[in-house]
Amino acid sequence: RQYHGGDTAAIMTEVQAKRNRLREQETEHVAHMQNLALIEGWARFLGPKQLAVQLSDGGSQHLTAENIVVATGSRPRLLTISGLPTERTLTNENLFELPAAPRHLAIIGSGVIAMEMAAAFRKLGSCVTVVTRGERMLTSAVPEASEALHAAFTAKGIRVLYHASPTGYDAASASLHVRTASGAEVLHEVDYVLLAVGRERNLNGLGLENTGVAFDEKGIRINSFGQTSVPGLFAIGDVTPTSHYTHSANAQGRRVVQRIAFPLLPATGPEPFYPSAIFSDPEVASVGLTPAEIGAKYHPALVKQLRVELKDLDRGYTDDVGPGFMQVTALRLTGQILGVTIVGPRASEMISFFTLAISQRISLYKLYRLVYPYPTYSGAIQKIADAWMRETLPNLKNEVLAFVRYRFARPVAQAKPAFNREGREGREGKMVGG
Amino acid sequence: RQYHGGDTAAIMTEVQAKRNRLREQETEHVAHMQNLALIEGWARFLGPKQLAVQLSDGGSQHLTAENIVVATGSRPRLLTISGLPTERTLTNENLFELPAAPRHLAIIGSGVIAMEMAAAFRKLGSCVTVVTRGERMLTSAVPEASEALHAAFTAKGIRVLYHASPTGYDAASASLHVRTASGAEVLHEVDYVLLAVGRERNLNGLGLENTGVAFDEKGIRINSFGQTSVPGLFAIGDVTPTSHYTHSANAQGRRVVQRIAFPLLPATGPEPFYPSAIFSDPEVASVGLTPAEIGAKYHPALVKQLRVELKDLDRGYTDDVGPGFMQVTALRLTGQILGVTIVGPRASEMISFFTLAISQRISLYKLYRLVYPYPTYSGAIQKIADAWMRETLPNLKNEVLAFVRYRFARPVAQAKPAFNREGREGREGKMVGG
Repeated sequence: RQYHGGDTAAIMTEVQAKRNRLREQETEHVAHMQNLALIEGWARFLGPKQLAVQLSDGGSQHLTAENIVVATGSRPRLLTISGLPTERTLTNENLFELPAAPRHLAIIGSGVIAMEMAAAFRKLGSCVTVVTRGERMLTSAVPEASEALHAAFTAKGIRVLYHASPTGYDAASASLHVRTASGAEVLHEVDYVLLAVGRERNLNGLGLENTGVAFDEKGIRINSFGQTSVPGLFAIGDVTPTSHYTHSANAQGRRVVQRIAFPLLPATGPEPFYPSAIFSDPEVASVGLTPAEIGAKYHPALVKQLRVELKDLDRGYTDDVGPGFMQVTALRLTGQILGVTIVGPRASEMISFFTLAISQRISLYKLYRLVYPYPTYSGAIQKIADAWMRETLPNLKNEVLAFVRYRFARPVAQAKPAFNREGREGREGKMVGG
Repeated sequence: RQYHGGDTAAIMTEVQAKRNRLREQETEHVAHMQNLALIEGWARFLGPKQLAVQLSDGGSQHLTAENIVVATGSRPRLLTISGLPTERTLTNENLFELPAAPRHLAIIGSGVIAMEMAAAFRKLGSCVTVVTRGERMLTSAVPEASEALHAAFTAKGIRVLYHASPTGYDAASASLHVRTASGAEVLHEVDYVLLAVGRERNLNGLGLENTGVAFDEKGIRINSFGQTSVPGLFAIGDVTPTSHYTHSANAQGRRVVQRIAFPLLPATGPEPFYPSAIFSDPEVASVGLTPAEIGAKYHPALVKQLRVELKDLDRGYTDDVGPGFMQVTALRLTGQILGVTIVGPRASEMISFFTLAISQRISLYKLYRLVYPYPTYSGAIQKIADAWMRETLPNLKNEVLAFVRYRFARPVAQAKPAFNREGREGREGKMVGG
């Protein structure tokens, strides 16, 4: 459903109210926990176990603690666009303070926040233009997901300019000047510009240098239990290289608590699989290894990719589903699932099925034997498993030969990636990339 | 979104067109398969491997086959309501031939079809009244699901009359007379009555008596591979006691094909877990053992029930979700999942996660370690697993003692069911019950 005009003010108010209530509940919940003191202020390390806090209500306080967790998060990376006044500049932090949906929203960047907000404001009736330096959107996902997003956005009337960056804003005419591969372009009547060109880790001013902790431009280095190079010092969330989502920060936090509560348990065990989920329209969700990681680990001849278009499902057909698919990469012969991407309705819910399957190393043979309700989008899992059986069973001899030949062969990916040049780097370096 | 007036004719036309296209595609697909002859007509067994077919285009034909599969399905059970003209009577078979949504639709029965159509036509703007003989709707589900459906239907303005049955229809005034526990009631301006009081298996006229196959009022008896008591004779779908859904019939069919293709493989192996999914609003989905089955197998002290309300999730809150929950029954100490019911948005997609977990005997301890995207409805799984850990870990001693004491104790359920008197009988006997 697309909203128009006056509707949007009420919707923005509701969104603000709900966000505020969730925030207050959280704060109140923390404030009322037993054995927990909430101190509001700016903290700075004096040593690995010592903090100086400049209190929000004045004064200061020194704290010493056996264990300290750094969870200072990140803030939007800013970008100067000459001529663009502050009151026309949005980030994800002030976006929802808008009294109503913009008439024409220009979004700089094409990462998670850009994708989510493009779809949301288009639904609210805004004219939306995405301006990205990249050759595709959402470089953290597989290229096929970017293609589907492009098709879906185009169908919704969202314009996307690739290889493009803003050069200036003319406040009098409300026009945004953009440099593109083919020259220059002017976007007219742009009342707001959303900067979504990445995040900056909140590491400055923390006095991290007084702790001796190892960190670099990718954040504070941690092991799979959130432990840093300094005993008793932990880090979770956006300040680490591994987490960019609320749920992954949360999962890291739980592992840190486990570590502090049971210090004698061995700090080994694999990193959990962190699913990603992007609430754009269509949703994009994935779990497991990226194409680049698969390419670095396995010979391409050992890997099989299976894909089902959601529109080929009865449910997709009756729902008039837009561009979307389920794509599973698995090891030949064994059917071990390596990585999954889903684009489409409920992708964010369906992905947990695969988080479970991958974590527990459940093969496609076993997924083949499950019964999936009809008519659902999860029916795509059945089709994937069917395709797997169809391609594997009649060629068992070849599958065994390929497995034996390539299982311990050196991957060729270092030289030439199997699928996607941007894979892991994209995820780490350009998560909300521009 | 609720539709009104003129909209509904277009919607009904679209639904018809889509259903027809799916049907035609299916027929065409079958007609063009190699090594397959499609014969249209009425078949009747002359012996276990012999059929006489009265062809649709006249004439007749005899067929002999090594393997025969009975998949004749079911038809709506009819109910005579005195005074109700045929043109005011609907079943799921002619329902979508309606040119537009009824003004006031009375639904007799409260099984799957009743629940789905009540929600669908209410959404189309019809006034909807459900008339059921039972004390709750959807007796095939756990009582908590019936409660949630009642709350949701009431909130939507769907009226439900319990312990009620129709006694007559007055065509002149378009009023339906209903006998209720407290007396009688008249429903006014009822333009259509939908009969959804169960299904009749299509077994008559098949000449089953000439095959010697074992069948009774619950259908043709089969093992978990669709094999009947007669070698080479198989049955799937509604004619069997175990399947009432498209997807379970489909799964049975796949197992029959497997059986015929690989006759030497042992015909053992457990029955797969058939999930149920009801596309009402809210959706109701479940998998695993019913409360009655759990009660018959385990001592109640050995069983733990965990429940999360969807509205207590951040996602439920921001979505203004209606009545809905996720409920998991598990074995104490081991965390083995026995049965799951989900009521709410995407229940039909989320249930596959649990089909996988139950089939692979993945415990709640392992679900606890997974990472679920935020904010999703699947986040309820995390909350369930958290609750499990909170209740189990601090009481490990008691859990072990209870496990040792009750693991091999005789269940008490024969005398008094642990949860739900209607469990399995409800599912088998009154699947689309009235």
